[in-house]
Amino acid sequence: MAEIIIGVMGPGDGASDRDIQIAFELGKQIATNSWILLTGGRRQGVMHAASKGAREAGGTTIGILPSMDVKGMSEFIDIPIMTGMGDGRNYINILSSRVIIACGLGAGTSSEISLALKTGKQVILINQDKTTIAYFHNLSPGLVNEEHHVESVIKLVRQII
Amino acid sequence: MAEIIIGVMGPGDGASDRDIQIAFELGKQIATNSWILLTGGRRQGVMHAASKGAREAGGTTIGILPSMDVKGMSEFIDIPIMTGMGDGRNYINILSSRVIIACGLGAGTSSEISLALKTGKQVILINQDKTTIAYFHNLSPGLVNEEHHVESVIKLVRQII
Amino acid sequence: MAEIIIGVMGPGDGASDRDIQIAFELGKQIATNSWILLTGGRRQGVMHAASKGAREAGGTTIGILPSMDVKGMSEFIDIPIMTGMGDGRNYINILSSRVIIACGLGAGTSSEISLALKTGKQVILINQDKTTIAYFHNLSPGLVNEEHHVESVIKLVRQII
Amino acid sequence: MAEIIIGVMGPGDGASDRDIQIAFELGKQIATNSWILLTGGRRQGVMHAASKGAREAGGTTIGILPSMDVKGMSEFIDIPIMTGMGDGRNYINILSSRVIIACGLGAGTSSEISLALKTGKQVILINQDKTTIAYFHNLSPGLVNEEHHVESVIKLVRQII
Repeated sequence: MAEIIIGVMGPGDGASDRDIQIAFELGKQIATNSWILLTGGRRQGVMHAASKGAREAGGTTIGILPSMDVKGMSEFIDIPIMTGMGDGRNYINILSSRVIIACGLGAGTSSEISLALKTGKQVILINQDKTTIAYFHNLSPGLVNEEHHVESVIKLVRQII
Repeated sequence: MAEIIIGVMGPGDGASDRDIQIAFELGKQIATNSWILLTGGRRQGVMHAASKGAREAGGTTIGILPSMDVKGMSEFIDIPIMTGMGDGRNYINILSSRVIIACGLGAGTSSEISLALKTGKQVILINQDKTTIAYFHNLSPGLVNEEHHVESVIKLVRQII
Repeated sequence: MAEIIIGVMGPGDGASDRDIQIAFELGKQIATNSWILLTGGRRQGVMHAASKGAREAGGTTIGILPSMDVKGMSEFIDIPIMTGMGDGRNYINILSSRVIIACGLGAGTSSEISLALKTGKQVILINQDKTTIAYFHNLSPGLVNEEHHVESVIKLVRQII
Repeated sequence: MAEIIIGVMGPGDGASDRDIQIAFELGKQIATNSWILLTGGRRQGVMHAASKGAREAGGTTIGILPSMDVKGMSEFIDIPIMTGMGDGRNYINILSSRVIIACGLGAGTSSEISLALKTGKQVILINQDKTTIAYFHNLSPGLVNEEHHVESVIKLVRQII
C-alpha cells in the first residue's frame, strides 16, 4: 500500500508569521498521523515551516522542486523530486496529494488551489480572507472547505481520505 | 522579429454564451491587429470561439494542447503544439503569451490567471464578476486590469506590448 | 486544417560545420514545401541554422524553448513557445512534429530520437555514424530511416505525411 | 539531510527475464544500502521488479508516474508522484536520481540514458549489448559505465555518490 500524501501549499517569501506558525503545526500533525507531507520544497515560507514541523515530529517530507538541483531546497526535505519545470511543477504537487491544504495565499498558491479544483480534489483553506473564500466557493462549491484551526483541518483530512 | 502572441484563456465546456461571443470578437480583433492568437486549443468554449474569430479575420492561431495528439482539437487551430501534459500545459500558455486576456472563468482559467500573475505578466479580465475581480486585485494589484468591452481590451493590449 | 509541422533536431553548441550546412538546407526545403519548421529554438547549431534556412526561403519557424523567456532564442524564430522546462521540452518537440529529422547527434538529440521512437513516430537520420544508425535500427527497426542527402530526406517526408 | 535516491531505468512490457531478475536484485541491494529506489513506477518490467526487490529488503520506493492517478502503478511503490506528463516525466526521473542504472533497453530507457548524459549524470549500464555500449560511450565518454554484475554496480554507485 502506498503512503498517504497530504499537500500543504502556501506562499514562499510572502508568508506571514501566522501562515508560518500554522504551517509548522500542520506539518507536525500530518507527521503525527503517519501521513507523508508534500510541499513545493523550497527553503521559504509555508513549504519550509511545514517541512520543519513534520521533521520534528518524526515524519517524512517530500519536496517537489521547481529547480534542476537542490539549490534553495529546505533542509527539512527527505525526498527531493527535481522537476526543472519552475511553477509548472505546481500541477504535480496537486496530482500527487490526496488532499490539499492551502495555508495563506500567493499567486502560486492560487494556481495550486485552482488546479486542485480542476482535477476534482478536496481543498482545505486555512488563514484566508473573506474574498478568497468567496472566490473559491463560487468556483467549485463542492470541493472547497474552510477551517480555522489546525485540529479541525486534520479532522477533515481524516474524513476525506 | 518574433510574432506578438496574445493569449486568450477561458472556460471550455462551462463557457456561457456571452463568454463565447466575446471570445469570438477578441479572436477577430487580435487577428486584425496582426497579432497571433494563443489558446488551449480544444474544440470547446472560449478556446474554440476565439480561434474561430481569428481564423475568420485571416489570422494565425496557436493551440497548446493538453493531449498527445490532435484528438479534440479545434478545427480553427493552425499551429497545434502537443504537450501530453494535461492541465500542466497551462503554464506554457502563460509563458508563451505577451499579454493574457481572461474571458469568463473556470478552475483552469483561474490557474492560468494565477500563473500569469506569478510570472509578472499583465492580465486583462473581461466578463468577470465582482468577487473574481476583487480576488485578483488583492492578489496582484499592479498586474490586474478590468475591461468591459472588446475595444478597450484591444486598446489596452496595444499599450502593454 | 492545421499546418504540417516538421521537426529538425540536432546538436546546439556541439554541431559540426556539416551538421549546420545540412540543417540550413533542410530548413530551406521544409519552407519551400510549405511545411512549418519546428526546432528547439535556441541561437545555436542545428536549431539556429535550420530556422535561418526556413526564414530565408519565406517559411514559418516554431521554437520550443527550454527557457521561461526569449533569452538565447534564435532571431529566426517566428513563433516562440516558452516552456520553462529545460530539456523536459524535448518531449513536446517530438509530440508536435509529424516527422522528426535528426541531423547530427548530441545527448539531447539522442533523447529526442528515443522519445520519437517511443511514441511511434518516423525518424529520419542524416549525417550520423554507423554505430548510431545500428543502435537506433536495433531499438525500433520499423521507424528508423537513414538518408544521405537533403533531397532524399524531403522525398521521404513527403511519403510519410 | 535528504535521502540518497538511486534511479533504476529499464523496459516495461519489453523487459526480458534477465532484465527482471537483475532489476529485482538491484532493488534489493539499493534498499540494503539504505538508499531510496526511484523508478517510473508502473506495474511492468524493470520498474516493477526493482520496486519489488527494494520492498522485500525493507527499503523505500518512489514511483514517478506518467499518469494523473495510481492506475497501473506497481503495488510495491511507497511514494507515488503523479505527473500526468506521459513520457515527459522521464526527465524528472533523471533529475531526481543521484546515479542512473539502466538495466535492459527500450526507447523510453534510451531517452532516460540520453537525458542523464545531457544533464551530466553518471550512468551505469547493465545487461546491454555491444552496440548500445559503443553508442553511449561515443556520445558521452566520461559518464558511461559498463558493469556485468549487480555487486559491481553497487560498488560503483558507492564510489560515485
